[in-house]
Amino acid sequence: MSDKSNRLIHQREIENLLIDYCRYLDRMELSKLAKLFSDDCHVAYGDDPKLIANGRAALEASLSRMWRWMRTAHHLSNIRIWFNGERRAYSESYVHAWHEGTGGNTAIIYGRYLDHLEMLDNSWKITERRMDMNGSDKGFKLPIPHTPRCEPPPDWIVPEGLD
Amino acid sequence: MSDKSNRLIHQREIENLLIDYCRYLDRMELSKLAKLFSDDCHVAYGDDPKLIANGRAALEASLSRMWRWMRTAHHLSNIRIWFNGERRAYSESYVHAWHEGTGGNTAIIYGRYLDHLEMLDNSWKITERRMDMNGSDKGFKLPIPHTPRCEPPPDWIVPEGLD
Amino acid sequence: MSDKSNRLIHQREIENLLIDYCRYLDRMELSKLAKLFSDDCHVAYGDDPKLIANGRAALEASLSRMWRWMRTAHHLSNIRIWFNGERRAYSESYVHAWHEGTGGNTAIIYGRYLDHLEMLDNSWKITERRMDMNGSDKGFKLPIPHTPRCEPPPDWIVPEGLD
Repeated sequence: MSDKSNRLIHQREIENLLIDYCRYLDRMELSKLAKLFSDDCHVAYGDDPKLIANGRAALEASLSRMWRWMRTAHHLSNIRIWFNGERRAYSESYVHAWHEGTGGNTAIIYGRYLDHLEMLDNSWKITERRMDMNGSDKGFKLPIPHTPRCEPPPDWIVPEGLD
Repeated sequence: MSDKSNRLIHQREIENLLIDYCRYLDRMELSKLAKLFSDDCHVAYGDDPKLIANGRAALEASLSRMWRWMRTAHHLSNIRIWFNGERRAYSESYVHAWHEGTGGNTAIIYGRYLDHLEMLDNSWKITERRMDMNGSDKGFKLPIPHTPRCEPPPDWIVPEGLD
Repeated sequence: MSDKSNRLIHQREIENLLIDYCRYLDRMELSKLAKLFSDDCHVAYGDDPKLIANGRAALEASLSRMWRWMRTAHHLSNIRIWFNGERRAYSESYVHAWHEGTGGNTAIIYGRYLDHLEMLDNSWKITERRMDMNGSDKGFKLPIPHTPRCEPPPDWIVPEGLD
Protein backbone atom coordinates (compact mmCIF):
# COMPACT_ATOMS: atom_id res chain seq x y z
CA MET A 1 0.00 0.00 0.00
CA SER A 2 1.43 3.36 -0.96
CA ASP A 3 2.19 6.05 1.59
CA LYS A 4 -0.54 8.21 0.10
CA SER A 5 -3.15 5.45 0.37
CA ASN A 6 -2.07 4.84 3.93
CA ARG A 7 -2.55 8.53 4.68
CA LEU A 8 -6.09 8.36 3.35
CA ILE A 9 -6.90 5.56 5.77
CA HIS A 10 -5.56 7.54 8.70
CA GLN A 11 -7.38 10.68 7.57
CA ARG A 12 -10.63 8.77 7.46
CA GLU A 13 -10.02 7.44 10.98
CA ILE A 14 -9.38 10.94 12.26
CA GLU A 15 -12.47 12.29 10.48
CA ASN A 16 -14.55 9.56 12.12
CA LEU A 17 -13.12 10.53 15.50
CA LEU A 18 -13.99 14.20 15.00
CA ILE A 19 -17.49 13.29 13.84
CA ASP A 20 -18.00 10.94 16.79
CA TYR A 21 -17.27 13.83 19.12
CA CYS A 22 -20.26 15.67 17.64
CA ARG A 23 -22.49 12.60 17.71
CA TYR A 24 -21.69 11.74 21.36
CA LEU A 25 -22.03 15.36 22.45
CA ASP A 26 -25.48 15.78 20.91
CA ARG A 27 -26.57 12.49 22.53
CA MET A 28 -24.77 13.40 25.78
CA GLU A 29 -22.92 10.08 25.86
CA LEU A 30 -20.09 11.69 27.74
CA SER A 31 -18.14 8.59 28.76
CA LYS A 32 -17.95 7.53 25.11
CA LEU A 33 -17.01 11.09 24.17
CA ALA A 34 -14.22 11.17 26.76
CA LYS A 35 -12.62 8.05 25.26
CA LEU A 36 -11.95 10.02 22.06
CA PHE A 37 -9.38 12.04 24.04
CA SER A 38 -6.06 11.01 25.56
CA ASP A 39 -5.85 10.50 29.32
CA ASP A 40 -3.81 13.67 29.70
CA CYS A 41 -5.63 15.78 27.12
CA HIS A 42 -5.78 19.55 27.32
CA VAL A 43 -9.04 21.09 26.13
CA ALA A 44 -9.86 24.80 26.03
CA TYR A 45 -13.10 25.98 24.44
CA GLY A 46 -12.12 29.50 25.47
CA ASP A 47 -10.05 31.43 27.99
CA ASP A 48 -12.60 31.24 30.82
CA PRO A 49 -11.47 28.60 33.39
CA LYS A 50 -14.95 27.08 33.19
CA LEU A 51 -14.26 26.29 29.54
CA ILE A 52 -10.92 24.54 30.19
CA ALA A 53 -10.34 20.91 31.16
CA ASN A 54 -7.08 19.09 31.83
CA GLY A 55 -7.35 15.33 31.51
CA ARG A 56 -10.05 13.03 30.24
CA ALA A 57 -11.93 12.76 33.53
CA ALA A 58 -12.03 16.53 33.97
CA LEU A 59 -13.29 16.92 30.42
CA GLU A 60 -16.10 14.45 30.97
CA ALA A 61 -17.14 16.21 34.18
CA SER A 62 -16.88 19.62 32.58
CA LEU A 63 -19.01 18.79 29.55
CA SER A 64 -21.92 17.86 31.79
CA ARG A 65 -22.57 21.61 31.55
CA MET A 66 -24.13 20.90 28.14
CA TRP A 67 -27.23 19.58 29.95
CA ARG A 68 -28.15 23.19 30.57
CA TRP A 69 -29.29 23.03 26.93
CA MET A 70 -32.37 20.98 26.09
CA ARG A 71 -30.87 19.88 22.76
CA THR A 72 -27.86 20.59 20.59
CA ALA A 73 -26.78 19.86 16.99
CA HIS A 74 -23.09 19.96 16.04
CA HIS A 75 -22.57 19.83 12.25
CA LEU A 76 -18.90 19.45 11.27
CA SER A 77 -17.40 20.53 7.95
CA ASN A 78 -14.17 21.88 6.36
CA ILE A 79 -12.07 19.15 8.01
CA ARG A 80 -8.35 19.63 7.25
CA ILE A 81 -5.75 17.21 8.60
CA TRP A 82 -1.95 17.41 8.51
CA PHE A 83 0.49 14.73 9.69
CA ASN A 84 3.64 15.13 11.80
CA GLY A 85 5.28 11.78 11.12
CA GLU A 86 3.45 8.46 11.47
CA ARG A 87 1.70 8.85 14.79
CA ARG A 88 0.94 12.53 15.17
CA ALA A 89 -1.38 14.86 13.34
CA TYR A 90 -3.13 18.16 13.76
CA SER A 91 -6.38 19.34 12.31
CA GLU A 92 -8.73 22.25 11.81
CA SER A 93 -12.46 21.78 11.35
CA TYR A 94 -15.51 24.02 11.26
CA VAL A 95 -18.56 23.40 13.41
CA HIS A 96 -22.05 24.84 12.97
CA ALA A 97 -23.43 24.30 16.48
CA TRP A 98 -27.07 24.92 17.32
CA HIS A 99 -28.31 24.93 20.93
CA GLU A 100 -31.85 25.06 22.31
CA GLY A 101 -32.37 26.36 25.82
CA THR A 102 -35.01 25.42 28.35
CA GLY A 103 -37.06 28.50 27.51
CA GLY A 104 -37.13 27.76 23.78
CA ASN A 105 -34.31 30.25 23.22
CA THR A 106 -31.66 29.20 20.73
CA ALA A 107 -27.98 29.95 20.14
CA ILE A 108 -25.86 29.27 17.06
CA ILE A 109 -22.08 29.42 16.87
CA TYR A 110 -19.90 29.27 13.74
CA GLY A 111 -16.93 27.70 15.45
CA ARG A 112 -13.62 26.06 14.68
CA TYR A 113 -11.89 23.17 16.43
CA LEU A 114 -8.08 23.24 16.43
CA ASP A 115 -6.84 19.80 17.43
CA HIS A 116 -3.66 17.87 18.06
CA LEU A 117 -3.99 14.13 17.63
CA GLU A 118 -1.86 11.14 18.47
CA MET A 119 -2.01 7.44 17.65
CA LEU A 120 -2.15 5.74 21.07
CA ASP A 121 -2.67 1.97 21.52
CA ASN A 122 -3.46 1.74 17.83
CA SER A 123 -6.21 4.34 17.71
CA TRP A 124 -6.20 8.08 17.16
CA LYS A 125 -6.99 10.30 20.17
CA ILE A 126 -7.34 14.03 20.57
CA THR A 127 -4.52 15.18 22.84
CA GLU A 128 -5.24 18.90 22.64
CA ARG A 129 -8.27 20.87 21.52
CA ARG A 130 -8.70 24.60 21.29
CA MET A 131 -11.76 26.32 19.95
CA ASP A 132 -12.39 29.68 18.37
CA MET A 133 -15.19 31.05 16.23
CA ASN A 134 -15.82 33.12 13.15
CA GLY A 135 -18.95 34.37 14.87
CA SER A 136 -22.27 33.53 16.42
CA ASP A 137 -25.84 34.72 16.46
CA LYS A 138 -27.13 36.96 19.22
CA GLY A 139 -28.36 33.99 21.28
CA PHE A 140 -24.84 32.76 21.93
CA LYS A 141 -23.19 34.43 24.94
CA LEU A 142 -20.05 32.47 25.90
CA PRO A 143 -16.73 34.30 25.43
CA ILE A 144 -15.24 32.13 22.65
CA PRO A 145 -12.21 33.86 21.07
CA HIS A 146 -12.48 35.02 17.47
CA THR A 147 -10.67 33.26 14.63
CA PRO A 148 -7.82 35.51 13.44
CA ARG A 149 -8.76 37.56 10.37
CA CYS A 150 -6.49 39.86 8.39
CA GLU A 151 -7.25 43.57 8.44
CA PRO A 152 -7.83 45.45 5.19
CA PRO A 153 -4.84 47.41 3.85
CA PRO A 154 -4.84 51.12 4.83
CA ASP A 155 -5.89 52.21 1.33
CA TRP A 156 -8.89 49.89 1.15
CA ILE A 157 -12.18 51.63 0.49
CA VAL A 158 -15.67 50.25 0.94
CA PRO A 159 -16.94 49.14 -2.48
CA GLU A 160 -20.02 50.91 -3.78
CA GLY A 161 -23.14 49.19 -5.00
CA LEU A 162 -22.76 46.03 -2.92
CA ASP A 163 -24.95 45.31 0.08
CA MET B 1 -5.53 -3.51 -3.04
CA SER B 2 -5.81 -3.88 0.73
CA ASP B 3 -9.13 -4.43 2.47
CA LYS B 4 -8.83 -1.03 4.08
CA SER B 5 -8.27 0.71 0.74
CA ASN B 6 -11.21 -1.17 -0.69
CA ARG B 7 -13.34 0.06 2.18
CA LEU B 8 -12.37 3.64 1.42
CA ILE B 9 -13.60 3.23 -2.15
CA HIS B 10 -16.96 1.87 -0.96
CA GLN B 11 -17.28 4.59 1.66
CA ARG B 12 -16.75 7.22 -1.00
CA GLU B 13 -19.41 5.61 -3.21
CA ILE B 14 -21.87 5.62 -0.33
CA GLU B 15 -21.04 9.24 0.53
CA ASN B 16 -21.69 10.21 -3.08
CA LEU B 17 -25.04 8.40 -2.94
CA LEU B 18 -26.07 10.24 0.23
CA ILE B 19 -24.99 13.57 -1.25
CA ASP B 20 -26.83 12.89 -4.50
CA TYR B 21 -30.03 12.42 -2.50
CA CYS B 22 -29.66 16.01 -1.27
CA ARG B 23 -28.78 17.36 -4.72
CA TYR B 24 -31.69 15.67 -6.47
CA LEU B 25 -34.11 16.67 -3.72
CA ASP B 26 -33.18 20.34 -3.89
CA ARG B 27 -33.51 20.25 -7.70
CA MET B 28 -36.68 18.10 -7.43
CA GLU B 29 -35.30 15.52 -9.86
CA LEU B 30 -37.38 12.85 -8.21
CA SER B 31 -36.94 10.04 -10.71
CA LYS B 32 -33.16 10.32 -10.34
CA LEU B 33 -33.58 10.50 -6.59
CA ALA B 34 -35.74 7.36 -6.55
CA LYS B 35 -33.00 5.37 -8.32
CA LEU B 36 -30.76 5.85 -5.27
CA PHE B 37 -33.11 3.54 -3.36
CA SER B 38 -33.81 -0.18 -3.79
CA ASP B 39 -37.06 -1.25 -5.47
CA ASP B 40 -38.43 -2.50 -2.16
CA CYS B 41 -37.05 0.28 0.04
CA HIS B 42 -38.69 1.33 3.28
CA VAL B 43 -38.48 5.04 4.07
CA ALA B 44 -39.90 6.74 7.16
CA TYR B 45 -39.19 10.44 7.76
CA GLY B 46 -41.39 10.18 10.85
CA ASP B 47 -44.28 8.19 12.33
CA ASP B 48 -47.03 10.00 10.42
CA PRO B 49 -48.27 7.76 7.54
CA LYS B 50 -47.83 10.72 5.19
CA LEU B 51 -44.09 10.58 5.95
CA ILE B 52 -43.71 6.84 5.19
CA ALA B 53 -43.16 5.21 1.80
CA ASN B 54 -42.75 1.54 0.95
CA GLY B 55 -41.06 0.94 -2.37
CA ARG B 56 -39.25 3.17 -4.82
CA ALA B 57 -42.35 4.23 -6.74
CA ALA B 58 -44.21 5.17 -3.57
CA LEU B 59 -41.21 7.17 -2.39
CA GLU B 60 -41.02 9.11 -5.63
CA ALA B 61 -44.75 9.88 -5.48
CA SER B 62 -44.56 10.81 -1.81
CA LEU B 63 -41.67 13.23 -2.18
CA SER B 64 -43.65 15.31 -4.67
CA ARG B 65 -44.93 16.90 -1.45
CA MET B 66 -41.68 18.89 -1.38
CA TRP B 67 -43.09 21.13 -4.11
CA ARG B 68 -45.16 22.77 -1.41
CA TRP B 69 -41.86 24.54 -0.65
CA MET B 70 -40.59 27.13 -3.11
CA ARG B 71 -36.98 26.08 -2.51
CA THR B 72 -34.95 23.84 -0.21
CA ALA B 73 -31.27 23.36 0.69
CA HIS B 74 -30.09 20.09 2.23
CA HIS B 75 -26.52 20.32 3.56
CA LEU B 76 -25.13 16.95 4.68
CA SER B 77 -22.34 16.47 7.23
CA ASN B 78 -21.10 14.06 9.94
CA ILE B 79 -21.36 11.07 7.61
CA ARG B 80 -20.51 7.80 9.42
CA ILE B 81 -20.58 4.48 7.61
CA TRP B 82 -20.22 0.93 8.97
CA PHE B 83 -20.04 -2.29 6.93
CA ASN B 84 -21.84 -5.61 7.51
CA GLY B 85 -19.79 -7.85 5.25
CA GLU B 86 -18.99 -7.00 1.64
CA ARG B 87 -22.36 -5.92 0.32
CA ARG B 88 -24.19 -4.36 3.23
CA ALA B 89 -23.63 -1.20 5.24
CA TYR B 90 -25.46 1.18 7.49
CA SER B 91 -24.87 4.85 8.03
CA GLU B 92 -25.75 7.90 10.07
CA SER B 93 -25.50 11.40 8.69
CA TYR B 94 -26.56 14.87 9.77
CA VAL B 95 -28.57 17.18 7.57
CA HIS B 96 -29.05 20.93 7.92
CA ALA B 97 -32.20 21.40 5.84
CA TRP B 98 -33.56 24.84 4.99
CA HIS B 99 -36.98 25.29 3.39
CA GLU B 100 -38.63 28.40 1.97
CA GLY B 101 -42.42 28.50 1.75
CA THR B 102 -44.62 30.27 -0.74
CA GLY B 103 -45.22 33.15 1.66
CA GLY B 104 -41.52 33.78 2.24
CA ASN B 105 -41.71 31.84 5.50
CA THR B 106 -38.75 29.56 6.22
CA ALA B 107 -38.16 26.38 8.22
CA ILE B 108 -34.86 24.83 9.31
CA ILE B 109 -34.39 21.31 10.66
CA TYR B 110 -31.26 19.84 12.26
CA GLY B 111 -31.95 16.28 11.20
CA ARG B 112 -30.30 12.90 11.01
CA TYR B 113 -30.63 10.19 8.36
CA LEU B 114 -30.30 6.59 9.59
CA ASP B 115 -29.79 4.36 6.57
CA HIS B 116 -29.32 0.74 5.60
CA LEU B 117 -27.53 0.21 2.33
CA GLU B 118 -26.95 -2.71 0.04
CA MET B 119 -24.79 -3.32 -3.03
CA LEU B 120 -27.29 -4.29 -5.75
CA ASP B 121 -26.30 -4.82 -9.42
CA ASN B 122 -22.89 -3.39 -8.61
CA SER B 123 -24.04 -0.11 -7.08
CA TRP B 124 -24.98 0.91 -3.58
CA LYS B 125 -28.66 1.61 -2.86
CA ILE B 126 -30.50 2.79 0.22
CA THR B 127 -32.78 -0.07 1.31
CA GLU B 128 -34.08 1.58 4.47
CA ARG B 129 -34.10 5.18 5.68
CA ARG B 130 -35.36 6.54 8.95
CA MET B 131 -35.08 10.16 10.00
CA ASP B 132 -34.97 11.89 13.34
CA MET B 133 -33.79 15.32 14.42
CA ASN B 134 -31.83 17.05 17.13
CA GLY B 135 -34.18 19.96 16.71
CA SER B 136 -35.58 22.62 14.43
CA ASP B 137 -36.41 26.27 14.37
CA LYS B 138 -39.93 27.51 15.04
CA GLY B 139 -40.81 27.53 11.32
CA PHE B 140 -40.60 23.76 11.07
CA LYS B 141 -43.85 22.00 12.03
CA LEU B 142 -43.68 18.34 10.92
CA PRO B 143 -43.63 15.76 13.72
CA ILE B 144 -40.12 14.35 13.19
CA PRO B 145 -39.04 12.21 16.19
CA HIS B 146 -36.20 13.49 18.36
CA THR B 147 -32.75 11.91 18.31
CA PRO B 148 -32.26 10.00 21.60
CA ARG B 149 -30.31 12.01 24.17
CA CYS B 150 -29.16 10.81 27.60
CA GLU B 151 -30.70 12.46 30.63
CA PRO B 152 -28.49 14.11 33.25
CA PRO B 153 -27.74 12.04 36.35
CA PRO B 154 -30.07 12.76 39.30
CA ASP B 155 -27.39 14.71 41.17
CA TRP B 156 -26.59 17.01 38.25
CA ILE B 157 -26.96 20.70 39.02
CA VAL B 158 -27.18 23.58 36.58
CA PRO B 159 -23.73 25.19 36.37
CA GLU B 160 -23.49 28.81 37.43
CA GLY B 161 -22.00 31.59 35.39
CA LEU B 162 -22.66 30.03 31.97
CA ASP B 163 -25.37 31.31 29.68
CA MET C 1 -1.92 1.44 -6.81
CA SER C 2 -5.26 0.86 -8.49
CA ASP C 3 -6.96 3.52 -10.58
CA LYS C 4 -9.72 3.76 -8.01
CA SER C 5 -7.27 4.33 -5.15
CA ASN C 6 -5.50 6.92 -7.23
CA ARG C 7 -8.80 8.69 -7.78
CA LEU C 8 -9.38 8.82 -4.03
CA ILE C 9 -6.07 10.59 -3.56
CA HIS C 10 -6.93 13.19 -6.18
CA GLN C 11 -10.43 13.65 -4.76
CA ARG C 12 -8.94 14.34 -1.35
CA GLU C 13 -6.54 16.90 -2.85
CA ILE C 14 -9.42 18.66 -4.56
CA GLU C 15 -11.52 18.60 -1.40
CA ASN C 16 -8.64 20.17 0.50
CA LEU C 17 -8.38 22.88 -2.16
CA LEU C 18 -12.10 23.67 -1.92
CA ILE C 19 -11.92 23.76 1.86
CA ASP C 20 -8.85 26.00 1.80
CA TYR C 21 -10.81 28.51 -0.25
CA CYS C 22 -13.29 28.81 2.64
CA ARG C 23 -10.55 28.97 5.27
CA TYR C 24 -8.57 31.67 3.48
CA LEU C 25 -11.69 33.68 2.68
CA ASP C 26 -12.86 33.73 6.30
CA ARG C 27 -9.37 34.78 7.41
CA MET C 28 -9.08 37.21 4.45
CA GLU C 29 -5.74 35.75 3.41
CA LEU C 30 -6.42 36.73 -0.15
CA SER C 31 -2.99 36.11 -1.67
CA LYS C 32 -3.09 32.54 -0.39
CA LEU C 33 -6.64 32.21 -1.65
CA ALA C 34 -5.69 33.46 -5.11
CA LYS C 35 -3.02 30.75 -5.44
CA LEU C 36 -5.80 28.13 -5.38
CA PHE C 37 -6.87 29.41 -8.81
CA SER C 38 -5.12 29.23 -12.18
CA ASP C 39 -3.48 32.37 -13.55
CA ASP C 40 -6.17 32.71 -16.19
CA CYS C 41 -9.13 31.64 -14.06
CA HIS C 42 -12.66 32.81 -14.75
CA VAL C 43 -14.79 33.38 -11.65
CA ALA C 44 -18.41 34.52 -11.62
CA TYR C 45 -20.32 34.64 -8.32
CA GLY C 46 -23.27 36.03 -10.29
CA ASP C 47 -24.13 37.99 -13.43
CA ASP C 48 -23.33 41.43 -12.01
CA PRO C 49 -19.94 42.62 -13.39
CA LYS C 50 -18.88 43.43 -9.83
CA LEU C 51 -19.17 39.68 -9.07
CA ILE C 52 -17.00 38.56 -12.01
CA ALA C 53 -13.21 38.30 -12.13
CA ASN C 54 -10.97 37.20 -14.98
CA GLY C 55 -7.54 36.07 -13.88
CA ARG C 56 -5.98 35.43 -10.51
CA ALA C 57 -4.90 39.03 -9.86
CA ALA C 58 -8.36 40.38 -10.66
CA LEU C 59 -9.94 37.78 -8.38
CA GLU C 60 -7.68 38.76 -5.48
CA ALA C 61 -8.47 42.44 -5.98
CA SER C 62 -12.17 41.76 -6.35
CA LEU C 63 -12.50 39.67 -3.21
CA SER C 64 -11.20 42.55 -1.11
CA ARG C 65 -14.90 43.53 -1.17
CA MET C 66 -15.42 40.91 1.56
CA TRP C 67 -13.90 43.37 4.05
CA ARG C 68 -17.22 45.20 3.95
CA TRP C 69 -18.27 42.34 6.28
CA MET C 70 -16.91 42.27 9.81
CA ARG C 71 -16.71 38.47 9.78
CA THR C 72 -17.76 35.55 7.61
CA ALA C 73 -18.06 31.75 8.00
CA HIS C 74 -18.12 29.52 4.92
CA HIS C 75 -19.09 25.92 5.76
CA LEU C 76 -18.69 23.54 2.80
CA SER C 77 -20.59 20.27 2.34
CA ASN C 78 -22.04 17.96 -0.35
CA ILE C 79 -18.76 17.94 -2.28
CA ARG C 80 -19.08 15.95 -5.55
CA ILE C 81 -16.14 15.57 -7.90
CA TRP C 82 -16.01 14.06 -11.41
CA PHE C 83 -12.88 13.51 -13.51
CA ASN C 84 -12.31 14.27 -17.20
CA GLY C 85 -9.19 12.22 -17.80
CA GLU C 86 -6.13 12.42 -15.58
CA ARG C 87 -5.65 16.14 -15.19
CA ARG C 88 -9.09 17.69 -15.36
CA ALA C 89 -12.07 17.52 -13.07
CA TYR C 90 -15.23 19.40 -12.27
CA SER C 91 -17.09 19.64 -9.01
CA GLU C 92 -20.21 20.82 -7.27
CA SER C 93 -20.28 21.73 -3.62
CA TYR C 94 -22.70 23.37 -1.22
CA VAL C 95 -21.74 26.30 0.97
CA HIS C 96 -23.56 27.60 4.03
CA ALA C 97 -22.14 31.11 4.21
CA TRP C 98 -22.78 33.42 7.14
CA HIS C 99 -21.82 37.10 7.06
CA GLU C 100 -21.85 39.72 9.80
CA GLY C 101 -22.08 43.37 8.81
CA THR C 102 -20.66 46.40 10.56
CA GLY C 103 -24.03 47.20 12.12
CA GLY C 104 -24.46 43.74 13.60
CA ASN C 105 -26.73 42.78 10.71
CA THR C 106 -26.24 39.26 9.33
CA ALA C 107 -26.80 37.52 6.00
CA ILE C 108 -26.89 33.80 5.25
CA ILE C 109 -26.73 32.21 1.82
CA TYR C 110 -27.33 28.56 0.91
CA GLY C 111 -25.05 28.52 -2.10
CA ARG C 112 -23.43 26.18 -4.52
CA TYR C 113 -19.99 26.35 -6.13
CA LEU C 114 -19.69 24.91 -9.66
CA ASP C 115 -16.02 24.47 -10.44
CA HIS C 116 -13.70 23.33 -13.19
CA LEU C 117 -10.31 22.14 -11.99
CA GLU C 118 -7.04 21.34 -13.63
CA MET C 119 -3.78 19.77 -12.47
CA LEU C 120 -1.14 22.44 -13.16
CA ASP C 121 2.53 22.11 -12.09
CA ASN C 122 1.55 19.06 -10.05
CA SER C 123 -1.22 20.65 -8.00
CA TRP C 124 -4.93 21.09 -8.59
CA LYS C 125 -6.18 24.61 -9.33
CA ILE C 126 -9.64 26.04 -9.89
CA THR C 127 -9.77 27.26 -13.50
CA GLU C 128 -13.41 28.27 -13.51
CA ARG C 129 -15.92 28.94 -10.73
CA ARG C 130 -19.57 29.82 -11.02
CA MET C 131 -21.90 30.22 -8.08
CA ASP C 132 -25.62 29.87 -7.65
CA MET C 133 -27.82 29.40 -4.62
CA ASN C 134 -30.79 27.42 -3.40
CA GLY C 135 -31.74 30.46 -1.38
CA SER C 136 -30.80 32.90 1.32
CA ASP C 137 -32.24 34.61 4.34
CA LYS C 138 -33.65 38.11 4.15
CA GLY C 139 -30.34 39.69 5.17
CA PHE C 140 -28.63 38.61 1.97
CA LYS C 141 -29.14 41.06 -0.91
CA LEU C 142 -26.69 40.22 -3.72
CA PRO C 143 -28.26 38.96 -6.99
CA ILE C 144 -26.91 35.40 -6.98
CA PRO C 145 -28.76 33.26 -9.58
CA HIS C 146 -30.97 30.44 -8.33
CA THR C 147 -30.00 26.79 -8.67
CA PRO C 148 -32.23 25.18 -11.33
CA ARG C 149 -35.19 23.31 -9.82
CA CYS C 150 -37.77 21.26 -11.70
CA GLU C 151 -41.34 22.53 -11.75
CA PRO C 152 -44.15 20.31 -10.48
CA PRO C 153 -46.14 18.47 -13.17
CA PRO C 154 -49.36 20.25 -14.24
CA ASP C 155 -51.55 17.81 -12.31
CA TRP C 156 -49.69 18.21 -9.02
CA ILE C 157 -51.86 19.33 -6.13
CA VAL C 158 -50.73 20.75 -2.81
CA PRO C 159 -50.84 17.92 -0.25
CA GLU C 160 -53.19 18.39 2.66
CA GLY C 161 -52.25 18.09 6.29
CA LEU C 162 -48.57 18.99 5.88
CA ASP C 163 -47.19 22.32 6.99
